[in-house]
Amino acid sequence: MRFAARVEVMPKAGIADPEGQTIERSLPALGYDGVAAVRVGKLITLELEADDADAARARVEDMCRALLANPVIEDYRVSIA
Amino acid sequence: MRFAARVEVMPKAGIADPEGQTIERSLPALGYDGVAAVRVGKLITLELEADDADAARARVEDMCRALLANPVIEDYRVSIA
Repeated sequence: MRFAARVEVMPKAGIADPEGQTIERSLPALGYDGVAAVRVGKLITLELEADDADAARARVEDMCRALLANPVIEDYRVSIA
Repeated sequence: MRFAARVEVMPKAGIADPEGQTIERSLPALGYDGVAAVRVGKLITLELEADDADAARARVEDMCRALLANPVIEDYRVSIA
């Protein structure tokens, strides 16, 4: 069966996020005050073949550890549709 | 009131996605076959002050057009919690 997967990859709490910091510093100059805690991660969508949803999830979590995320500095979350 | 917002930014359909293509080409070499349609976007989380959820959403959508996304080549979706 064919499954659609979504992977959310975010910098772990406490890990520097230069892109988020840059956005947060830029927003007031554009007129947007009161914005805080900006964090920027990746959203990856893909399709894969698997026997069932559990197998699809396990396979995508393997792919996260191997390629899609850096588990030292990033958290990832997989959802299967 | 303080709201948490999530912004999903994805390349529009038909727009080249070099990062997604690179991931898709790399997966078979790592033993992951049968993966297709890999697309890579951004997931941005932030907190902001607004009078109500509708105002928060409108403000974040403005921020998307001004800074967070490139509406020519990217679609964005805002959710408020």
